[in-house]
Amino acid sequence: MTTAIYPGSFDPAHNGHIDIATRASKVFDQLVVAVYEEPPKGVLFSTAERVEILSESVKGLPNIRVMSFTSLVPRFARQVGADFVVRGLRAGLDFETEFEMALMWRNLDPEIDVVCFMSALEYQFVYASRIKEVAQLGGDVRGLVPPPVAEKLTAKFDRVS
Amino acid sequence: MTTAIYPGSFDPAHNGHIDIATRASKVFDQLVVAVYEEPPKGVLFSTAERVEILSESVKGLPNIRVMSFTSLVPRFARQVGADFVVRGLRAGLDFETEFEMALMWRNLDPEIDVVCFMSALEYQFVYASRIKEVAQLGGDVRGLVPPPVAEKLTAKFDRVS
Amino acid sequence: MTTAIYPGSFDPAHNGHIDIATRASKVFDQLVVAVYEEPPKGVLFSTAERVEILSESVKGLPNIRVMSFTSLVPRFARQVGADFVVRGLRAGLDFETEFEMALMWRNLDPEIDVVCFMSALEYQFVYASRIKEVAQLGGDVRGLVPPPVAEKLTAKFDRVS
Amino acid sequence: MTTAIYPGSFDPAHNGHIDIATRASKVFDQLVVAVYEEPPKGVLFSTAERVEILSESVKGLPNIRVMSFTSLVPRFARQVGADFVVRGLRAGLDFETEFEMALMWRNLDPEIDVVCFMSALEYQFVYASRIKEVAQLGGDVRGLVPPPVAEKLTAKFDRVS
Amino acid sequence: MTTAIYPGSFDPAHNGHIDIATRASKVFDQLVVAVYEEPPKGVLFSTAERVEILSESVKGLPNIRVMSFTSLVPRFARQVGADFVVRGLRAGLDFETEFEMALMWRNLDPEIDVVCFMSALEYQFVYASRIKEVAQLGGDVRGLVPPPVAEKLTAKFDRVS
Amino acid sequence: MTTAIYPGSFDPAHNGHIDIATRASKVFDQLVVAVYEEPPKGVLFSTAERVEILSESVKGLPNIRVMSFTSLVPRFARQVGADFVVRGLRAGLDFETEFEMALMWRNLDPEIDVVCFMSALEYQFVYASRIKEVAQLGGDVRGLVPPPVAEKLTAKFDRVS
Repeated sequence: MTTAIYPGSFDPAHNGHIDIATRASKVFDQLVVAVYEEPPKGVLFSTAERVEILSESVKGLPNIRVMSFTSLVPRFARQVGADFVVRGLRAGLDFETEFEMALMWRNLDPEIDVVCFMSALEYQFVYASRIKEVAQLGGDVRGLVPPPVAEKLTAKFDRVS
Repeated sequence: MTTAIYPGSFDPAHNGHIDIATRASKVFDQLVVAVYEEPPKGVLFSTAERVEILSESVKGLPNIRVMSFTSLVPRFARQVGADFVVRGLRAGLDFETEFEMALMWRNLDPEIDVVCFMSALEYQFVYASRIKEVAQLGGDVRGLVPPPVAEKLTAKFDRVS
Repeated sequence: MTTAIYPGSFDPAHNGHIDIATRASKVFDQLVVAVYEEPPKGVLFSTAERVEILSESVKGLPNIRVMSFTSLVPRFARQVGADFVVRGLRAGLDFETEFEMALMWRNLDPEIDVVCFMSALEYQFVYASRIKEVAQLGGDVRGLVPPPVAEKLTAKFDRVS
Repeated sequence: MTTAIYPGSFDPAHNGHIDIATRASKVFDQLVVAVYEEPPKGVLFSTAERVEILSESVKGLPNIRVMSFTSLVPRFARQVGADFVVRGLRAGLDFETEFEMALMWRNLDPEIDVVCFMSALEYQFVYASRIKEVAQLGGDVRGLVPPPVAEKLTAKFDRVS
Repeated sequence: MTTAIYPGSFDPAHNGHIDIATRASKVFDQLVVAVYEEPPKGVLFSTAERVEILSESVKGLPNIRVMSFTSLVPRFARQVGADFVVRGLRAGLDFETEFEMALMWRNLDPEIDVVCFMSALEYQFVYASRIKEVAQLGGDVRGLVPPPVAEKLTAKFDRVS
Repeated sequence: MTTAIYPGSFDPAHNGHIDIATRASKVFDQLVVAVYEEPPKGVLFSTAERVEILSESVKGLPNIRVMSFTSLVPRFARQVGADFVVRGLRAGLDFETEFEMALMWRNLDPEIDVVCFMSALEYQFVYASRIKEVAQLGGDVRGLVPPPVAEKLTAKFDRVS
């Protein structure tokens, strides 16, 4: 049986993330979407919110679980019995950083391998940070994120202004 | 009649910006240089200063106006009746980010197109952030910025030290 | 009045080319799509065929003309009274080469400026060379090229096999 | 059951290829290493030699088969019942080309997904074309290729000189 | 006699830095490793600590001195009688930024040249920021940094938690 | 005493090459510009011509010699007693290839180090292949190459047409 983790901040999850998780769930027997518990001041959505959004979005896929984690990625992989780490790659901006990070992970634990999925064309420009920026300025991001995320973004930025 | 906006932080405007604006003003009938109103703590020059510097620098070009804006780029384009957004590209560092941003803009408003000018050779290494860093350490940036900017930079960093 | 040329091999023209020409025709008063007359052995489509395909594809756009040329790009621009050269940029692979070529053109004639359009998302992976490769192996490229090109590609590769 | 193909020219297979095949064989239930049958004048090793080298190199891995193919990659995937295509990525030079190719494959057959493995650090600079170039000049490539390849390269280039 | 400076933050020095300094010391008669005195809140190690770590790590190399500096890089080069600035390049992420910075330095002082060394394969993924991140999460970085750095990192992060 | 080789095809040498050789001659006690003897059909200038052009161009620099070579780069370095290989880097297009090649050289001979110089701004777009292309179409390349090269290019392409 193959098990993989798909780690990230997911602040918030967008359709590109859901697409990668869905595709990875066809490759691996078990997939754990792993939400990194960043300190609250650095994120817009709390860890609980981020886990809930993802859980809701992948609930139709029985071999995906959503969990939060605080440790190093390869260590968390071991904890849940995973041998693989899933990463999505968008053109250009992602690759070099992902590559450097993957090499560090292999240095920390050579038994854990990194498996990459190339982002679908329609999610090439979909970045969580840009989505928050656009939403904050009142832009419509409904086509880019799961429905509950669009609502929550509107609520959060309405509260601010 | 074609109208374009050339949005940016321009904190401060440098000779590379003036060059792009000048070249774009030959392509479009009307060009609006659009200064993004960032919160004061994030910028060295106030919005009013940034608008004034640019206005002074392009005053010989009758089809350029300088304005400030706070909304999304494609929305501001619509507000001033522009169908095009002008961007400058320096080698390497700019392209991927510009590309991702242009795709987001087209997603927000497919009617607004992005038109890019490649930076002239002599402005390849001219970045506003690097200019501020060099000026703060007492380096001479007079060849890289319009004359009033050099003076203002000296004044600002003298005051600090 | 602004006039631009959009030079290329167009062997064959694909939907990404037609999209760039269409968008450029909204920026410039006159656009000349300029087909480079490469030696017959280097191309799949003759110069006449390449000019015909493009003429057919842009016939609804009255301010576009299609011509062939053999000289340096900035020299041909001068010949047709153009001050601008239009280029399309796909993510990653195109930028560095386009940049180097644009700098050479400016070195040859500083009065001619290069104006770039970013490829639409749906044409990011559309390269003439890849299209020929896929068509040669019997792949369906109808969604990627103007209808007459798909037919001609099928005819050419049927003849070969 | 998951099945993947790992297509390439493998002219010749090097240790980076063997590493990717080995790692992919842990992710997928079945892996078909697919040797593209290029016309003899374009390759140094015949299709039969290339298949034989790979078969020898992966013979300890029971879920890997080596086959040759001539059709489009997604079509060959279908033929052998595979839903996935495996690709290796070295830093920088590979990514953009792989990305463009993956998008073309998805355009030809949206059901076939591409799964990428990042090259191990020690194979970052290992390219088949460079290996042939070095071997032709008498350089020692034994650490970079399976033992039979080193012998065959020496034999081929001795014959030439 | 040739003299070079090797400037950086070195917060903290890692094995990639020591490797570049060692290699540069074979090219130049004198090498000054120059530790940039950043404001304390931006760094994990104080200037004194960073100088001490480097001094300890290169003490076997008689033509290397370690100093701290606060001015512009080309100005500090002049101060110590150096005509050259040494920089290390890792694949991808470093090059564009280094290039832009080198051009700015040449603009500030055309007499000072920049000489680059390509990072050894085993240090490709070794970044000071990533090392601190991994150490903070309790990861083992002993193979990536000089022994005193590993100890100090453990001490610093133990104190925090 | 430090000795370096600066290997290349130099078909033909351009001002960017002369600039790198000049700058490298200030770093190393001895510099050997090493012209790779490619088969005549692949080059426009014969090995003798390429050596002669370079010798003429660097004759004012007493510590530079020009030689031709046919072997592997690290092996030729050994033959002339050099411990270093000099390479020039232009933005973007050069880096990845140079990096991969440098890693292969270090694999072949770990004692030979590669030292890179960043191309001056004015030579960023100066490529031998592009120069030949422009000269063939009658473009003026006199500002980009040593005077004898401009003459020879004109002569060669006049003869052809």
